[in-house]
Amino acid sequence: MKINRYQDISEVEKEAKKDYIDRHSAFVHPQGDAKKGEKFKVKVKVGDEYLHPDDFDHYVAWIQLWDGETQLAQVNMNAGALGNAPSQLEVDFYIVPTKSKMKLTAHAYCTKHGIWESDEVVVTVA
Amino acid sequence: MKINRYQDISEVEKEAKKDYIDRHSAFVHPQGDAKKGEKFKVKVKVGDEYLHPDDFDHYVAWIQLWDGETQLAQVNMNAGALGNAPSQLEVDFYIVPTKSKMKLTAHAYCTKHGIWESDEVVVTVA
Amino acid sequence: MKINRYQDISEVEKEAKKDYIDRHSAFVHPQGDAKKGEKFKVKVKVGDEYLHPDDFDHYVAWIQLWDGETQLAQVNMNAGALGNAPSQLEVDFYIVPTKSKMKLTAHAYCTKHGIWESDEVVVTVA
Amino acid sequence: MKINRYQDISEVEKEAKKDYIDRHSAFVHPQGDAKKGEKFKVKVKVGDEYLHPDDFDHYVAWIQLWDGETQLAQVNMNAGALGNAPSQLEVDFYIVPTKSKMKLTAHAYCTKHGIWESDEVVVTVA
Repeated sequence: MKINRYQDISEVEKEAKKDYIDRHSAFVHPQGDAKKGEKFKVKVKVGDEYLHPDDFDHYVAWIQLWDGETQLAQVNMNAGALGNAPSQLEVDFYIVPTKSKMKLTAHAYCTKHGIWESDEVVVTVA
Repeated sequence: MKINRYQDISEVEKEAKKDYIDRHSAFVHPQGDAKKGEKFKVKVKVGDEYLHPDDFDHYVAWIQLWDGETQLAQVNMNAGALGNAPSQLEVDFYIVPTKSKMKLTAHAYCTKHGIWESDEVVVTVA
Repeated sequence: MKINRYQDISEVEKEAKKDYIDRHSAFVHPQGDAKKGEKFKVKVKVGDEYLHPDDFDHYVAWIQLWDGETQLAQVNMNAGALGNAPSQLEVDFYIVPTKSKMKLTAHAYCTKHGIWESDEVVVTVA
Repeated sequence: MKINRYQDISEVEKEAKKDYIDRHSAFVHPQGDAKKGEKFKVKVKVGDEYLHPDDFDHYVAWIQLWDGETQLAQVNMNAGALGNAPSQLEVDFYIVPTKSKMKLTAHAYCTKHGIWESDEVVVTVA
C-alpha cells in the first residue's frame, strides 16, 4: 500500500500539483521546549498554504501522531466538523516525554487520496 | 450501561470521592468567541483539580466531542503518552460552526471506570 | 446527551417508527458457548428486520462492544464500505472471557441519529 | 516511519525470528466468492502459526482493512479483550463490493513493534 510523502512544493512547478501535495500533507509543529515529565504541546496540521475540502465524500478523516514506531494518539474527525468548507484539519496533542529524544511523525488519511506521512521532526528533550 | 456524570465536588464530603469524581470528569473549555464559518478552538480536559494515572492497565483511553447527538471528533490516546505518570489528558480540537448554537459535551473513557460525561456547554455562534 | 435504547417494535404501531427504531438498534448475538480462556465469537449487527442507508452523509460510523462498563472493542466503518446502499452493519468480534459472567452490550453510532444502545446480553462462561 | 512487511517464514532460519515475524503479521482471509452489491465476509487475523501476547503494555491494538488506498474499516481492541494471554487477534468484517476488483490489505499495530502490513489479496468480484 502506498504511503504518500511530503515533497517540497517550492520545487514543484504545476500549481495543481503544489495544491494537491500541500493540502494533503501533515505537518508536525512542536510548541515550545520539551522537558522530561512535563506536558508538551504538539500541533498537527494538514496543509500549510492550501486548503482541503470537508465534503461528506471527501475529507481528512484522521491524524495519527507517532514517536518512531510507537503510536501516541489518533484523532478521528467526522465529516462536517470543519463546516463542510475547505479548511486545514488541526489538533493540539499534549504528551509527556520521558526519553531524551523524540522522533515525531504524523499520518493523515484523506478518504479519497490515502495516507500522507509528514516529515519527521526530531525533538530534543531537556 | 452506566454513563457517569460530573457532580459538583464542592458538595462532596469525602476526599477520596472528590478525587474519584474530579479526575475522571471531562471538562469542555471553549476558547474565545465562536463565529460562523471560522475555526473555533475547543479544549477538552479530563480532571480539573485532581490527576488520573497513566498506567498501562488504567488510563483514560479516549475523549469524544459531541454537539448535541452529533459526534464531531474522537481522540484515542495510547497508554504511556502521558509519561506513565498521573496527569490530565488534554486535547485542543478545532471545529468550524455553521449553526447559531452548539451544545457541546464530551465523553471520556477510563479503562477501569467507564464512560464519564461532561456538563453540556452551550455556545452561541455569532 | 441522549443515548437511544431499543424498544420492542412489535409493540410499536407506526411502520415508520418501527423502521426507525429497528434499523438503528445494535443487536448482540453471541455465537455458541463461552468457555474461560477460549476464543468466543460475538456478532454485532445493526438492524434486525430493516436496513440502514450507507450514504456519505448518513451511515452507521461505529460499533463499540462492552462488557459492563469495560470496553472490549470498537470498529469504525468508512462510508461506502457497505456499497452506498441500504444494509445492516455487521462485525464478528472474537474475545477471550476470563470471568464466569459477561454482560455484553453494544453502542452503535449513526451520523444523523446518534448513539443507540443494544439490550444487555448476559453470557454465562463455563 | 517503518512499515513492517510479512516475509515467508519458511525461508527464515532462526526460530525466534520466525515467531517474531509470524505473530505480528496480519493475514487477510476472504471468505467465499465476492459478488457486486452483496455482503462479503473478510476475516483478518494477526499471526498464522504463532501467538502474540495480550499484555497491557504489549498487545495488538488495532487492525485496519484497506482496498488499495481506501480505508474500509478499523477495529481497535482493548488490552485484555483476549484474556491477557497469548492469542491471535481476529475479526470478521462484512463489506459490500461495488467494483470488479478489490485489492485488500490489512495493517496491524503492535504497541511495542509498530505497524505490520499484510500481503495484498486481490479479489475478483462477479
